[in-house]
Parts: sequence; C-alpha cells; structure tokens
Amino acid sequence: MSLPGPIDPPARLLMGPGPITAHPRVLQAMSAQLVGQYDPYMTAAMGEVQELYRGVFDTANAHTLLVDATARGAIEAALVSLVSPGDRVLVPIMGRFGHLLAEIAGRCGAEVHTVEAPWGEVVPLEAIAAAMERARPRVLAVVHGDTSTTMMQPFDGLRELCDRYDCLLYADVTATLGGNPFPVDAWGVDAATAGLQKCLGGPSGSAPATFSPRAVEVIEGRRSIEAGIREAGDPATAHPIRSNYFDLAMIFDYWGPRRLNHHTEATTMLYGARECARLVLEEGLGHYQGRHALHGEAMAAGLEGMGLRVYGDPAHKMANVVAVEIPEEVDGEAVRSALLADFGIEIGTSFGPLAGRVWRIGTMGWNARKDAVLTTLAALEAVLRYQGYGVPAGGGVDAAYDAYAGAGVAA
Amino acid sequence: MSLPGPIDPPARLLMGPGPITAHPRVLQAMSAQLVGQYDPYMTAAMGEVQELYRGVFDTANAHTLLVDATARGAIEAALVSLVSPGDRVLVPIMGRFGHLLAEIAGRCGAEVHTVEAPWGEVVPLEAIAAAMERARPRVLAVVHGDTSTTMMQPFDGLRELCDRYDCLLYADVTATLGGNPFPVDAWGVDAATAGLQKCLGGPSGSAPATFSPRAVEVIEGRRSIEAGIREAGDPATAHPIRSNYFDLAMIFDYWGPRRLNHHTEATTMLYGARECARLVLEEGLGHYQGRHALHGEAMAAGLEGMGLRVYGDPAHKMANVVAVEIPEEVDGEAVRSALLADFGIEIGTSFGPLAGRVWRIGTMGWNARKDAVLTTLAALEAVLRYQGYGVPAGGGVDAAYDAYAGAGVAA
Repeated sequence: MSLPGPIDPPARLLMGPGPITAHPRVLQAMSAQLVGQYDPYMTAAMGEVQELYRGVFDTANAHTLLVDATARGAIEAALVSLVSPGDRVLVPIMGRFGHLLAEIAGRCGAEVHTVEAPWGEVVPLEAIAAAMERARPRVLAVVHGDTSTTMMQPFDGLRELCDRYDCLLYADVTATLGGNPFPVDAWGVDAATAGLQKCLGGPSGSAPATFSPRAVEVIEGRRSIEAGIREAGDPATAHPIRSNYFDLAMIFDYWGPRRLNHHTEATTMLYGARECARLVLEEGLGHYQGRHALHGEAMAAGLEGMGLRVYGDPAHKMANVVAVEIPEEVDGEAVRSALLADFGIEIGTSFGPLAGRVWRIGTMGWNARKDAVLTTLAALEAVLRYQGYGVPAGGGVDAAYDAYAGAGVAA
Repeated sequence: MSLPGPIDPPARLLMGPGPITAHPRVLQAMSAQLVGQYDPYMTAAMGEVQELYRGVFDTANAHTLLVDATARGAIEAALVSLVSPGDRVLVPIMGRFGHLLAEIAGRCGAEVHTVEAPWGEVVPLEAIAAAMERARPRVLAVVHGDTSTTMMQPFDGLRELCDRYDCLLYADVTATLGGNPFPVDAWGVDAATAGLQKCLGGPSGSAPATFSPRAVEVIEGRRSIEAGIREAGDPATAHPIRSNYFDLAMIFDYWGPRRLNHHTEATTMLYGARECARLVLEEGLGHYQGRHALHGEAMAAGLEGMGLRVYGDPAHKMANVVAVEIPEEVDGEAVRSALLADFGIEIGTSFGPLAGRVWRIGTMGWNARKDAVLTTLAALEAVLRYQGYGVPAGGGVDAAYDAYAGAGVAA
C-alpha cells in the first residue's frame, strides 16, 4: 500500500452538538511526553485530576475519577457496577439518549422500566413519581441533557423521590456538564458520568465520573480482585460485576491509595482531561456556565432573527445546544454540506423522529464565543440565501448583537 | 482550591514493560485539531486506519479497526462479543495475563477451562491439545506475549487444533504486536487485539483489533441495534451481546459503510493510532520487528555482561522485553527508585510470584534504539555499584556493543 500522509485536518469550526473544536490548550497538554504508570508525577496528576473534577462536578465525593473510554463507556461502567442482574432500573425517556440508558441497563441484566415524554418535552416529576411507585427501582437513571432534542430534565424533587424509595440516582451529564448547573452534592446525585467532547472542550475518549458514598457502598459490595494479582487474605467474589474493564470497584483500587494495577491509564487522555478541568476552574465554574448561557441565548436569538423556529420547550432547553426546525422548502442536508464545504463550519442534524427535521447548533466549550456565534449565523444566512431560501438580510447577526447588548456585552 | 499548573512532565526514558516513551511524531499527530465525527476527513482517516492496521496485523480482514479503550478493553470487546454465556473457553496460562483472559471470559459468562505452565515457560502444544480434547471449547483464548514473565506462546499448530474442534482462535497481542512476528492470516487467527503503549510506541487508550470472516459471522449472529436509532425493518435482537460499549456488531456498523452512530470516536487517540501504524509501515513491518529483536538481544546481552541472570526459557522470550533476576543481596526497589530519581530512567518489576524477584526492561517502539539500550545499561551499572553491589566495570555496555557488532551494527 502507499502510505497516507501525516495527520493534517482541514480548518473546521465545529458548531454541532459535539464533538466540538477542542481548546488549543487541551491539545497542547496532550502533546506532552508520557511518564510511567506509577511515576510519582503520574500518580500526582491522577490525584490532581480527581480534585479538579470534584470542582467541576461541585462535589466532595472521594470517588471522582476518569473512566478510560468515551462517555458511553462511562455510562456502562456506572450501570454495570451499580446494577446486579435482576435489579429494577427506571429510566425517564425524552429522546435518544434515554433509550440508550434503557438499552445499556438492559444489557446489564436489569429489569428496565421506562416513563416517556414526547420528544421536545421533559418528563414531569409527577410522571416519574408515579413510575417510581409502580416500579420500585433500585436505580433511577436520568439523562440530564438529551442532545437529540436539546431538552434538559429538571432534577428538582428526584433526590426526595429516591430517598422515599431507597433508590440510587444516576445522571448522564455527558452533554451538560460545565455548560449548565449540575451541583452533584446539592442535588443528591449518587453517580454521574460525563465526557470531554461537549462543554468541557476536549476530545472524546476519557470520561469524568463521580460516585457518592452510597454508590460506592453498593459497588464495594460487589468487589472482586482478579486471580492473577490476588493476594492471600483478599476475599473471593460472590457476585462479581459482569465487566472487568468497567468494574468500578477495581477502578477505585487503581485510583485509590492501593494503586492496584487494573488497566494502563490512558496518560495522554488524562493530560487532556486535566487541562479541560483547569480551563473550567480557572474561569470559575459559575462564569463558565454563564458563558454557555450567554452565547447559547445569542445563538438562539440569531436563529429566530433569521426567521427560523427553535424546537422544543423553551423552558427546558440546554444552554449549550439549540435545535431549529428546518423549513419545509429547504434541503437541510444540502445546507449542512455547503456550510462544511464552503465555510468550514459544522452543524448537526438529529436522530430518529428528528432526523432531517431539525438542525442542532452547539455553542460549547471553547466555541461558546461571540465570534463563533456571529460567524455561524452569517454563514448560515449566506448559504440559505444562496440556496434560494429568503431570509432577512443581517437578521440573524443583528438579533444576536441585540441579545449580547441586552446581556450587557459590548458589541 | 489552588489550581495545579499546566502539564509539565519530568524527562523520562521509559524502559519498563510499557507504557514506553511515545514517539514524538505520535504526540505531534495527537495535537492536531478535531474534525466532526462524520466529517469526510474523519471517515477517510478511519478508513486509512483500517488499512494501516491491516498492514500491521498482516491481514486482509475487512473488520480491522480501533476499540476506544485501553488494550484490556479490547480484550473484553473481543470476548464479550464472541462468547455467549455458557460457551466453553479454553485459556492457556503462563503468567498474569493468561489469568486476566480467564477472568474476563468468566465475567462474560463463559465456562472457563485453563491449562497452565509454570511461570517462565510456555504451554506445550500437546498440553493445549489434550485440554482441547477435554474441554471442547468454542474459543481458544491465548496470550501471545505475557509481559509478566516475558514468555511468548508459540502459535504453531493452534489453527489446526482449532479446526479439528471447530473452535475460534483469539489472541491477545497487546505486548507483542509490531515487535514480534504475528501474521494474523498466515497463522489463522480469528481475532486479535492490541494496544498502542508497547511496541507501537504510542500512549494507552486506543486498541487496534482485527476479526476474521469466521469471527465476524459469530458476532453478526448476535447483532442488535439500539432502540433509539432502530429503523423499520431492522431486526430485533434474540441474544444480545451483554455489553453495549463493547458490542462489536455495533462497532462494525460504525466503522463500516453504514456509519451507524455508536460511541463518538476518540478522534485524538485515532490520530495517534494512525501515526503509530504509519511509523511501523514506513519503516517496514519486517524491519520494525527486526529492530526489536536486535535491541532486545543487545539489552539481554548487556544485562548478562553485567553478571545478571536472564529469567525464563530463552527459546520463548519476547523480543521487546527481558526479565532479569534481582540478585539476593540487592534491594530491587531501591535500584528502581534511584534509576528513576537520579537518571530519569524507568524499569519495571513484575506481579504475583515474580513481584520483587525480577526487573523487567523493555526495548520497544521508539525506545528500541542503541542509545536507549546503552544509556540504560550504563545507568543500571552505576546504580548497582553505588548501592554496593559489585559489577564488572563496563561489562554491560561492552557486552551490548559486542552484540551490536555481532549483528553487524557499527558501534
């Protein structure tokens, strides 16, 4: 074969639902040379990562760490470690990623119960309460922000419900962490998992996760130590977790003071995850979230200024991504292709019932910036007009400028 | 909290059993900016990665791809996708990583059979044949090179055995791929998984893997499509694979022409994996492997020249790592600590029965180089002497020089 050349990606502004353009400081951190798995620098960096993500998750949880997989892998790690076969799991579903939680829980052997809302809405607390009463689940597994619809499920009342039914509360915050408030301890969340490729401004491939003492107790109760490194006195396993790679009890031992060898930590991803969290906390968690709100609102205002209709319940929209309905006379994929090919800008479509019906436009991480918002709006207007769909000249950018002015941001 | 500073690792020469110092070109590739998940550049890069790793695995397997996890995750992906609960799996064990295969197979619900050799030896073909006759396994799962002992299991005759018993042949080549011959097609291997952090000279976190048509048929027979993106006409699942993240049937769809969304590919790790394979094939697979043999032999000769005894059956040693017995009067951990603290050089110890009994010294990937070998030998000699253990002055470096000269490499 003739070898392909070195990696040399085209210029892109990634304004879809994620992955988004990585912050240059994250990529720079990831080009640092490796150290050994138990090098004092490495174990110190692991400790720093734990402390940094306690800040990002707004938690005191000792068991805060990275899962060496994409966000989806961390969901599976949480569920396979918390859920024993036969356990009942309740999943509120308002989009694709609720279905994913249900599917993963099912593969873990759970008896899965669901409570669904129409796409574009969230699941009312009363509906969840009624489903809890019916299902009596051991785990309530909730997608915080479902990017397929851009809806964000309120967590008000979920802890109280879980206390009433002695149930663990798991949250998939892949698409929301950093860009929307999600105080793990204040909201009484027992387990939460994320990814780097959304609001945290890094690449996919490492997944921050946190576990409350209550969750840890459940996981520790299923602890096992693999035969090859088991020592005298270590207990044998009665009901092992069905995955080795995602066995959080073993992963806790690897990240904890025993440093018991499990997998080989993905050093470069850890360097990147560390820098993502440093960026959040350097700016300040509240400001970082506020920046997502500001630019998300400006983007939505701009799209409406262009005459497009924002999809879904506005009271429950994620800050960092907006879905707009594709006008009937517009070929949505042709617009996306032209934006990518001619302007280097990527926006997304969606899944299932929304495939081809909406565009999804993200403003997150590094790209939650005024120039990224205005450039995207100007380019979208240009493409729509060039493809024959009349939009008010400058309407999108003007409306975004107005939104910024209204928020007190100088034009 | 006060924030830790930017990533700034100390200078290290990683001469342990892996991870090893990454090739600078790999780190450079990993600092490239992201593109979207379905960007034409991304899908082209995925295709290039597949073709590059066909070269590295020496296979025509269409289903050659990356698993987004460390090497351990790819082992689990292979076994959980190939093995249905209740299937019999036979694992030859000659060290820690054979135990790991058995443990992972057990978590997949397999009825696990093992056939063990003492540490430091390999499992004789006749013993495997007898165990096959007894166990009639559906999968024979073999560690190719077990870094815990540095032994490399011969594959001669395994395909014939598997044909006789209608059995799939899986190989864990994490520690050997690239540094030792492993022609997947010529040896009739049905599934093989690796990692980047050994002979391929990259960081942990992405795992190249390849699957024969026979393996693919088994996996396709267990196919499922998650509810959230299932379309009319797609079949429902009878016996789903017990993992979603490691469901290779879904991962095949993601890497295949349908590009059906599964996880979000870890773009930066893919960039790195691509450069690792480019380095192998640019040098030429045979030359790359030969370089590991050359420098591995020089390292072993140097250690013997220092009066140390190489551990294990020399006829079956991996090219890229050597274990030497720690002399009784020497504090092995004190030597390792001084090498790291004073020379910036990392070597390893081992696990279980070999913990504290041997040092393991690797010569792999970028570090399969003369300067890395000679520097390590000189530093080890210096530390041993400084700690009061008499070694012949210059004996290690001299012996390595001689080995290089004998191999026709100019000093």
